[in-house]
Amino acid sequence: MVWCSAVLASKAPDHPLPVGMRDLLPEETRERRELAQRVLGRLELYGYDLVLLPAFEFADVLERGLGALDPSDVLRFVEPESGEVAAFRPDMTPQIARMIATRLGARPPPFRLAYEGTVLRRLSGRARKRRQIPQVGVELVGVGGMAGDLEVLELAMSVLEAAGLEEFVVDLGDAGIVRALLAGVASDAPERATAIADAVGRKDEVEIADRMRDAGGDPSVLLDLVRIRTVDDGVRLLASTAAAPAAERLRALHRAAVSRGLGDRLTADLGEIRSAAYYTGMLFRAYATGSPDAIASGGRYDDLLAQFGAPMPAVGLGIDLDALAHAARAASPTSAPQKRVLVIGDEAKARSLRARGIPCVVRAECEGAEEWARAWGFTMESS
Amino acid sequence: MVWCSAVLASKAPDHPLPVGMRDLLPEETRERRELAQRVLGRLELYGYDLVLLPAFEFADVLERGLGALDPSDVLRFVEPESGEVAAFRPDMTPQIARMIATRLGARPPPFRLAYEGTVLRRLSGRARKRRQIPQVGVELVGVGGMAGDLEVLELAMSVLEAAGLEEFVVDLGDAGIVRALLAGVASDAPERATAIADAVGRKDEVEIADRMRDAGGDPSVLLDLVRIRTVDDGVRLLASTAAAPAAERLRALHRAAVSRGLGDRLTADLGEIRSAAYYTGMLFRAYATGSPDAIASGGRYDDLLAQFGAPMPAVGLGIDLDALAHAARAASPTSAPQKRVLVIGDEAKARSLRARGIPCVVRAECEGAEEWARAWGFTMESS
Repeated sequence: MVWCSAVLASKAPDHPLPVGMRDLLPEETRERRELAQRVLGRLELYGYDLVLLPAFEFADVLERGLGALDPSDVLRFVEPESGEVAAFRPDMTPQIARMIATRLGARPPPFRLAYEGTVLRRLSGRARKRRQIPQVGVELVGVGGMAGDLEVLELAMSVLEAAGLEEFVVDLGDAGIVRALLAGVASDAPERATAIADAVGRKDEVEIADRMRDAGGDPSVLLDLVRIRTVDDGVRLLASTAAAPAAERLRALHRAAVSRGLGDRLTADLGEIRSAAYYTGMLFRAYATGSPDAIASGGRYDDLLAQFGAPMPAVGLGIDLDALAHAARAASPTSAPQKRVLVIGDEAKARSLRARGIPCVVRAECEGAEEWARAWGFTMESS
Repeated sequence: MVWCSAVLASKAPDHPLPVGMRDLLPEETRERRELAQRVLGRLELYGYDLVLLPAFEFADVLERGLGALDPSDVLRFVEPESGEVAAFRPDMTPQIARMIATRLGARPPPFRLAYEGTVLRRLSGRARKRRQIPQVGVELVGVGGMAGDLEVLELAMSVLEAAGLEEFVVDLGDAGIVRALLAGVASDAPERATAIADAVGRKDEVEIADRMRDAGGDPSVLLDLVRIRTVDDGVRLLASTAAAPAAERLRALHRAAVSRGLGDRLTADLGEIRSAAYYTGMLFRAYATGSPDAIASGGRYDDLLAQFGAPMPAVGLGIDLDALAHAARAASPTSAPQKRVLVIGDEAKARSLRARGIPCVVRAECEGAEEWARAWGFTMESS
């Protein structure tokens, strides 16, 4: 007996979801799954091993990596069994660090680990609005300096190509530049320095100028910095500043990337600053038409593993699958879903189709069959 | 620069995980992923559409399906934004019901939806011990009676075959049998009737006898019931009881399953009772060597969708991927992982291997290369 759709006309109550949570319906889920497979397949090709991490952790573990968690940024709750504070991960990198230090310490570095999962973050600048972000990422732990930076940069570009993107740019920066320029500015009030760095990240010149003057500093270098688009201009601008070594490091990396054939997609953003406090060197963000948000981002974090008792240099990459799906959709029409067949009343026929790998559903009656097949993307069996 | 493993000898602090949470290391993750792909591939072959559901929901949604949630069974917390109680899903079926009622109501039934995700449940009988269970499942919504029961029963067996199991049994029962026998027993104290039903589910004859006598009932039919292993014996036993119609329904389903070729793996368990309160008809649980827990279970729940304003009959199936992995490991040796290669210093070589689909990692120096390759499952490139 098949229920008719009329019963659904009865008023369905509204069931809102917790803030930032969402469902994915069949078509979105299929698209997401195909995209994740392509990305994970490419990470495997570079020798990365997928691991699975729990959706929440004790806040202490996350804070070791991320610094004190702002309660408005992170969803926290008291775990009834232990009385300890647990939190939904806003970032999987501290979890990977914990796993390496506590579970994988017997294996020789370098570690090449990949992960897939959902993080829960506050939308930047929007108080009380979190968003569930589906992520795939990698961490390369135990390879310091330029060799690791180049591996992850090449991998980021390769993954975006595997996802079907042809046009994208990767903004390259270094966490040491803005940090060096702000050392000594508002040193008694770190949250003021953070606010200036955020304004630099957003290239908000008015705010940079206001906040630097409030802090008693000279905004001129920062104001020039956010307008610069080439590494060489940046090195010249910063030559006589505390940021000169970081700028030179960025130039060396940029040159090495160009000679590795990665130059076509590279742009420089010397004011690039990532919100995660753990970055210590290279930073990058990838952008493509179709997504206002970065589709991939990452950088070097050489001090994080020491927080977990396993001091090693590290560099990582995270891909926002929602943003990547938007960009991939803009780049190429979605692939046609696999053919699947609706069979009327014939179980043996269905069995033989399935044995040939053709997805198939059996329906007892003809009535309404065409409407159903159309709505759910099935082809009527031609008998 | 590659860090040597000596640095890891420094004492790594212990980082316990929240109760019931766990990590999956590379080898387990690869095995899990292969298993999930096989299962999901089989569900697709039967025309089921994968959807994605959020990890937590307002408790109200879950309680509509599951009845009042026992705080010791479910991890709950107050969502800061709304002040409402949210909970980690102990079960994805109420979420599917919510999705159908609120998001998919414009499509014609039947609905064939599949899901994959983690549920968080109390270990039965162990207070204050939850376990994270990785599940894949399906819900067939809008097909009442035997047609739907048979589709899901056949699908359950097909999925277990796709996972590589050759020997398994499916215990078939009906939620109406024990319910009818307990109607009127301890009707003023539903928790006492639930305790009796639980004792029947565990076939604990001493407890059945004690609790029935405490409730002023006659335990003899229940004591006979838990010893019966064939449907025909059950029908005879129950012929003059309130459970006669449910027993006849089970016999009709069993016969239809046998004539569909599913008889070899079917056994009957008339005392079968699932903990979820929503079941109304057929119940089943599949068992195989290698796992003490059921590897798959499911049943009919014709009243649940009405709780969400979309009254329709429904039947579902859930697979415990941990239990299935144990059984699959016992049934057949794990497949060899894909070959992958460690290349020393030659980026061009690595590129050409990857272009041929061979996973590959580049290492600058020879020292320690063999140890690394062995530990991580790579083959040294023979040049």
